Amino acid sequence: MYPDSIKNLIESFKYFPGIGEKTAERLAFSVMEMDDERVQLFSDSMHDVKTKIHACPKCNTLTEDNLCSICQDKMREENVLCVVDDVKSVFLFERLGTFHGLYHVLSGLISPLDGINPEDIGLEKLIDRIKEGHFDEVILAFKPSIEGEMTGLYIKKVLEGLNITVSKIANGVPMGADMEYIDALTLERALLDRKKIS
Amino acid sequence: MYPDSIKNLIESFKYFPGIGEKTAERLAFSVMEMDDERVQLFSDSMHDVKTKIHACPKCNTLTEDNLCSICQDKMREENVLCVVDDVKSVFLFERLGTFHGLYHVLSGLISPLDGINPEDIGLEKLIDRIKEGHFDEVILAFKPSIEGEMTGLYIKKVLEGLNITVSKIANGVPMGADMEYIDALTLERALLDRKKIS
Repeated sequence: MYPDSIKNLIESFKYFPGIGEKTAERLAFSVMEMDDERVQLFSDSMHDVKTKIHACPKCNTLTEDNLCSICQDKMREENVLCVVDDVKSVFLFERLGTFHGLYHVLSGLISPLDGINPEDIGLEKLIDRIKEGHFDEVILAFKPSIEGEMTGLYIKKVLEGLNITVSKIANGVPMGADMEYIDALTLERALLDRKKIS
Repeated sequence: MYPDSIKNLIESFKYFPGIGEKTAERLAFSVMEMDDERVQLFSDSMHDVKTKIHACPKCNTLTEDNLCSICQDKMREENVLCVVDDVKSVFLFERLGTFHGLYHVLSGLISPLDGINPEDIGLEKLIDRIKEGHFDEVILAFKPSIEGEMTGLYIKKVLEGLNITVSKIANGVPMGADMEYIDALTLERALLDRKKIS
């Protein structure tokens, strides 16, 4: 029904996560209304991302440089390492601007049921890095899940006897949340992990 | 915070209607996970749309050909013309497959308050086409609005004395709708335009 090139563009948009038929149509039509220059910029930036971006060889964060800007930064605290399971988390923490240590990105979490073992998520590289470095603390910032717990326990076990504190970010009731909308598991964890007011 | 090429891609996605910061980030990251080939196809289809698609010189529908497929189709009923205010409506009606007449796309609706006059939406071309053609009926399929009413009245007036029926698509309660969620204006119109059950 649509001319071929419109049909193809709609199909292309549908490859993006969370974009269905209607949205794909809307986006395709908006491409037609955009300046040629804008569309060219968009095309170029996709090409750049595909060709320039790679994982930092040290911490696995995405970067255009040889080493990422965080690994290159001599001002970062070299004794604290924040381990995340998704590269996006690095950018989330960096946006906060309150963490000044280093990062390490795992490619997922251990999940024996899905056949994902320690070697599949790059744990060996992490452990080597910790052993070769001068870390006093390793902070685990995984999404709250069974897999996150397992991966944490594994790391804790491997680092035993190395005099490194292994901690994990707090779970609990999110700030500003309406208590009645918090799920039971979160509430239970918040109660269990209660902190003394000093 | 993000490497430049990721930042640029996020900015590019934000130029699309209804796409905010979070969605743009999600889409940009999904570009990184896509096959190179898929991204190239996407780029190519955008380029195709920008270079191949143009308005049909006869009806203003989008097409890659000289005349659009509907204007070229000798099987269409040449005595009925459906006038729409947005090219997307043509594709909506064609998807139904129940209308076999011809179309004409206006570039919007008359809106004196916004300084949009008959000459701005291509009404002259429409009137010329109707006068030169063999139409018995002109169906107005505009979105229900004051502007739609005005544009309809204008067309009706200009065509007076030409022995052409000017009709407009029905307004009323949409099929399957919950009566309690229908706005008052729609309900009023549905009552006013009631049809005798025969």
